[in-house]
Amino acid sequence: MLLLNTDRIVSGVLAGEKQSIARAISVVEDPRLSPESRQIIKGIYNHTGKAHVLGITGPPGIGKSTMIGMLSKMLSQKGHSVAVLAVDASSPFTGGSLLGNRIRMQESLSKFGVYMRSLANRGLSGGLSRSVWDSVMVLDAAGFDFIIIETVGAGQADLDVVYLADTIVVVLAPGLGDQIQAIKSGIMEIADIYIVNKMDREGSYIALKDIEEFLAYSVQGEWKVPVIGTNSLTGEGYEEYISRIISHRDFTGKDSRTRLRRYRYELKLALEDEMKQKIDSEIRRLVNENAIEDMMSSRTDPYTAAESILEDLLSSDSAD
Amino acid sequence: MLLLNTDRIVSGVLAGEKQSIARAISVVEDPRLSPESRQIIKGIYNHTGKAHVLGITGPPGIGKSTMIGMLSKMLSQKGHSVAVLAVDASSPFTGGSLLGNRIRMQESLSKFGVYMRSLANRGLSGGLSRSVWDSVMVLDAAGFDFIIIETVGAGQADLDVVYLADTIVVVLAPGLGDQIQAIKSGIMEIADIYIVNKMDREGSYIALKDIEEFLAYSVQGEWKVPVIGTNSLTGEGYEEYISRIISHRDFTGKDSRTRLRRYRYELKLALEDEMKQKIDSEIRRLVNENAIEDMMSSRTDPYTAAESILEDLLSSDSAD
Repeated sequence: MLLLNTDRIVSGVLAGEKQSIARAISVVEDPRLSPESRQIIKGIYNHTGKAHVLGITGPPGIGKSTMIGMLSKMLSQKGHSVAVLAVDASSPFTGGSLLGNRIRMQESLSKFGVYMRSLANRGLSGGLSRSVWDSVMVLDAAGFDFIIIETVGAGQADLDVVYLADTIVVVLAPGLGDQIQAIKSGIMEIADIYIVNKMDREGSYIALKDIEEFLAYSVQGEWKVPVIGTNSLTGEGYEEYISRIISHRDFTGKDSRTRLRRYRYELKLALEDEMKQKIDSEIRRLVNENAIEDMMSSRTDPYTAAESILEDLLSSDSAD
Repeated sequence: MLLLNTDRIVSGVLAGEKQSIARAISVVEDPRLSPESRQIIKGIYNHTGKAHVLGITGPPGIGKSTMIGMLSKMLSQKGHSVAVLAVDASSPFTGGSLLGNRIRMQESLSKFGVYMRSLANRGLSGGLSRSVWDSVMVLDAAGFDFIIIETVGAGQADLDVVYLADTIVVVLAPGLGDQIQAIKSGIMEIADIYIVNKMDREGSYIALKDIEEFLAYSVQGEWKVPVIGTNSLTGEGYEEYISRIISHRDFTGKDSRTRLRRYRYELKLALEDEMKQKIDSEIRRLVNENAIEDMMSSRTDPYTAAESILEDLLSSDSAD
């Protein structure tokens, strides 16, 4: 059992120390929200809100990791500090097969001062989101200019994560299958920037046209969503890619809607977590008093029982 | 928009009418718990508690569906009424590839009076469990003697589901890979009966011995966990399989621990759901009053904000 000095971790994070950042993320990424996790967030919260968060999503196998490598390298060469959070959407059967790749990338990126961290998706949809956003707060408080979140964009959990980013980049590659998958999964509607990666491949211009056509039929806001072709091996398209990211950062700087949405979401998760803890202790109390046996033997259905328990809980004084 | 007559559905379920059962399950399987869903559960609850619930789990590709087909056919030939709930743990990318198989099986089993139903796993771990157990209550109230739940036993969501069954059957097949997978996923520890299926395959006796060895090193309770080899095409081993299920039913009939555990779990889910609804309406209220903007601009971190909101919520009178 390790005793954590959260004050020490907080001051280390604020000073930008790598070891404290790593330790803080290890604490807050645990899906079971711990008291230490709350202490860290409370300690750093006043120092967040400066980083620009990029959510990069797209189906597996289209070169997202290589793209994020190139992107973060170029951003850091332009004088921005960059952190990357990779979110594994690994199934229980395949778990962590890309670890080798991640380690290689990590080594090559650290030469450019890019901080890279892989978060384990432990199969808890709400928990994942909270892990990611609390980790983003740590990196934000540590002073990074850009925080890049990488997800595979499959399923609601990933959508929840990427939805709260300041700039959402959807990456596709030549080949109709991916595009259809992306449209079905709902990520097409939320993109601020589209990238067609692997522009050297056959069908890349068709893919670009497909997306432009899709956008032509969509309702557009004040921000004109760009579609950019890139080649992550040669760097083709990256100057435009980066300039669009910067202009979207300036654009979103004007209003605080994303930050408000994120705050509301974090508040909701925090409330749900508090409630869960109250419920757990209430159920433990009922177990101790054999009250659950009584409900069961009087054949009270769980929903009616829950209603009356909650009524008691809400009308009682919360003096503790 | 369809208006549901839940009283009509409840009385139909209690009369064992197939159409009402199907409709009731469609209502309660929705991961977003509806008022109709509560009404149905409240209406049927007093008629539950008679069925014996079998949870059958094991890795994909070992013939679980064929086994369940043979098992339910033989149980119904012995005079027991049987319902099967198949829980798809399909990923968002593969969704429902076995539908054709399911339909064929359904047709052949309905000749024996076996009721079969496939539940969609919509990627909500807590939601899945509640869907399954509320569906089990419907089938229980409809008067089935045995309710068989089929899961692939991968990940926490499946474990949650199967954990609450009266009798837990873990199915394995020759070949070490599966066994290791099963041990890693935690399903080995919770089995009441082990089946090695596909006994005609090479390595089947080694698989039997492996499991017996595993059990020799495990702490055993009053129930001696049997390991049975079966062949689902010839019916080999099924007489013993069924007699062990019946004796485990008699064994568990003696104490009500499983049912108490299930009640506690359902109560917890119902409480969490009630709480979530309260939180949602509270957050809507805060949004309307711009209270969230105020918290954000005064830089109150979400956890501190949640604590004070909850304190207000709990100390206020719940007169509504």
